[in-house]
Amino acid sequence: MTQMLPSAAVLGARAFAALAGLNRFSDEPGKLTRLYLSPAHRQAAEWVKGAMEVAGLNAAIDAAGSVQGRREGTVPGAPAVLIGSHIDTVKDGGRFDGNLGVVAGILAAQALRDAGISLPFPLEVVAFGDEENVRFPTHLSTSEALAGHYDPAWLEARDSEGVKLGDALQAFGGDPSGIAALARKPGSIQAYLEVHIEQGPVLEAENEPVGIVTTINAQSRARVRVTGEAGHAGTVPMTLRRDALTAAAEMALALEQIASGHELAVGTVGVLRPEPGATNVVPGAAEFTIDFRAPKNETLDAMEAAIASRFAEIAERRGVGLEIVPYAKAAAVPMDPKLQDALAAGIARTGSNLAGRRLPSGAGHDAMAIAAAAPVAMLFVRNERGISHSPLENMSEADAGIAIRVLLETILELAGSSK
Amino acid sequence: MTQMLPSAAVLGARAFAALAGLNRFSDEPGKLTRLYLSPAHRQAAEWVKGAMEVAGLNAAIDAAGSVQGRREGTVPGAPAVLIGSHIDTVKDGGRFDGNLGVVAGILAAQALRDAGISLPFPLEVVAFGDEENVRFPTHLSTSEALAGHYDPAWLEARDSEGVKLGDALQAFGGDPSGIAALARKPGSIQAYLEVHIEQGPVLEAENEPVGIVTTINAQSRARVRVTGEAGHAGTVPMTLRRDALTAAAEMALALEQIASGHELAVGTVGVLRPEPGATNVVPGAAEFTIDFRAPKNETLDAMEAAIASRFAEIAERRGVGLEIVPYAKAAAVPMDPKLQDALAAGIARTGSNLAGRRLPSGAGHDAMAIAAAAPVAMLFVRNERGISHSPLENMSEADAGIAIRVLLETILELAGSSK
Repeated sequence: MTQMLPSAAVLGARAFAALAGLNRFSDEPGKLTRLYLSPAHRQAAEWVKGAMEVAGLNAAIDAAGSVQGRREGTVPGAPAVLIGSHIDTVKDGGRFDGNLGVVAGILAAQALRDAGISLPFPLEVVAFGDEENVRFPTHLSTSEALAGHYDPAWLEARDSEGVKLGDALQAFGGDPSGIAALARKPGSIQAYLEVHIEQGPVLEAENEPVGIVTTINAQSRARVRVTGEAGHAGTVPMTLRRDALTAAAEMALALEQIASGHELAVGTVGVLRPEPGATNVVPGAAEFTIDFRAPKNETLDAMEAAIASRFAEIAERRGVGLEIVPYAKAAAVPMDPKLQDALAAGIARTGSNLAGRRLPSGAGHDAMAIAAAAPVAMLFVRNERGISHSPLENMSEADAGIAIRVLLETILELAGSSK
Repeated sequence: MTQMLPSAAVLGARAFAALAGLNRFSDEPGKLTRLYLSPAHRQAAEWVKGAMEVAGLNAAIDAAGSVQGRREGTVPGAPAVLIGSHIDTVKDGGRFDGNLGVVAGILAAQALRDAGISLPFPLEVVAFGDEENVRFPTHLSTSEALAGHYDPAWLEARDSEGVKLGDALQAFGGDPSGIAALARKPGSIQAYLEVHIEQGPVLEAENEPVGIVTTINAQSRARVRVTGEAGHAGTVPMTLRRDALTAAAEMALALEQIASGHELAVGTVGVLRPEPGATNVVPGAAEFTIDFRAPKNETLDAMEAAIASRFAEIAERRGVGLEIVPYAKAAAVPMDPKLQDALAAGIARTGSNLAGRRLPSGAGHDAMAIAAAAPVAMLFVRNERGISHSPLENMSEADAGIAIRVLLETILELAGSSK
């Protein structure tokens, strides 16, 4: 059966050609910027709808702006297999983030149709539109709609120009009143698979083209404010200082040490602002952000406790005030173990000697939202130097082809095991 | 003789009243902002000229905008004793920084005249106008003029609105072509004394109202740029990171440690900017400033070498690039030992049990410029919480009075020893 499917090399070439077509649509000339419900998003959605139709799917742009394509299976009433990702991007983003997963689903459906393969379940491909959390203060709203967790308050959210999401959705051609009906019935999805660029350097470091995601990491963010006492950089003796910046520096290093001490955990200070921020003034205050993630909720909780205790010790020893204000926390979303094994079987079916390296995802994905309604799994693709959210984001055509071939074999594995 | 002089309490009250008068003149309503050659500077200079005349001095505003007052002594041709400081301020500055030293000189001259005391030397009071280095990229230009080190290129310097210093000086009523003639003849000044608020917390911590400055510290400043690799805060494992911010944090702590290891030295990171500066991005670069000072040039050189070596070690270990660009360096300016002793004798003559605590100055002062042409010394006055360059800058009336009384006694000490 699988002999009739295109090779990884052919699939890679088709994927890069398809991405070149899809990525013509941008809100900013010379860059790839495609924000949720923008004109470029509408054009891209139309392109995806057309590509789905060419691949033999019944396709439509739904009430929330996602593109949904479906081909029925041979067993009536069987729950569907969904292949999905997103076609919105960050400002000046990369070519593969989201788009590759959508193109992978379309090319897989097309290859199966071309090979004359019937599946015992409906095959669906979905292109979500609100993954990047850039235009509106919402996150994953289009995948939440399918999972039945759309919050109607999101329709009132405004972009930086004051436009309401609900109004933008209507202008796009969507239908706020139709969103509730997008929720899938419990049990109607047997598997959600998402192919995505890794957005990190692990697979490259281990020389593996693809990897199986084990979990989407638990994550916590907080704003930290340290208050010391400002003073003249020349006249306040070291022993009388309460320097907020050196206190913050020590905390940043403590976070780095705490994260390094937990397997697969990360911790980052991305923003740091000393006040007043003048060369000749000892900083009287410093504000910084902390972002820390771990595959297990217990690890995240342990890190949170260690951060609180180490930061407090540093603040007390240095005589500075400390305020830690958490503002975002997300529990870990484990990928379905059976679907992880199905991906591993899909890798094995390609006949290659790939390791099927398992790794956690440090970034969020649409799979997080869908996980509330269906078993989900993700396949990561090797990312050149781990660079993402940048026009420098890159992967090889060969790796893209391998990922789509693995996706195809995984669908066939599911077809075999569900027969 | 000294019984006829006003008490410290009376001098303190007179000083605070005088400061209230002088500090009515500001370029910004509700704040004390008096930039070199501004309208408020002109008004303040006129006020100082009037106050000098009332105190029995022949006074004039000179070609560079300084106010000079002089009373002749009894010994023809004797070198003069100058009392000076500045009447320009930073933006939204404090009431005492500079202004106290000018008022102290005027009140000392007035008290001596009122007491009928003749001095064997000319007594001069000078109110400089360009100490704070705020409006123009010049520093101490008015005191450099008296020292004979005025650089004519400074007349071409421009403020942030593009106005040339030379043009501003003419609009003020000064005379660029007359600046060269302001240079004092070698040997014509036997002592320059400056009373100044400490701008630091040392005297307060030691419960001393006044202190004798030993040296104006050597100082060095540099911009440091650390380049690592930006990455997704969720997806780049700790072991694969080249985080520019944690590298910079370690360097800031190294500077703190190096400065703490040298007696009376200080080291400060006042500015620190991670790039791109987003919560969920591992910083790919970080820029910061270092400012370090020490009483001795050798100490500063040793610190500079230690900084270069420690920073390089940190950069190498963390795999980040490092660039240190020094942009300002000033040698230490020791105060004249005999004049320090004269101030100590002045303190002793007050009959109080003050310690005459000796301390270095971490900030620059007009005395630095005058030191090239004459023996100089400075008397520091206790500063509430060490706060300066701020409307919160404060000292007690009692301490101001003690300082002026010490200045008076020091002038008499010089008169005695030069007789």
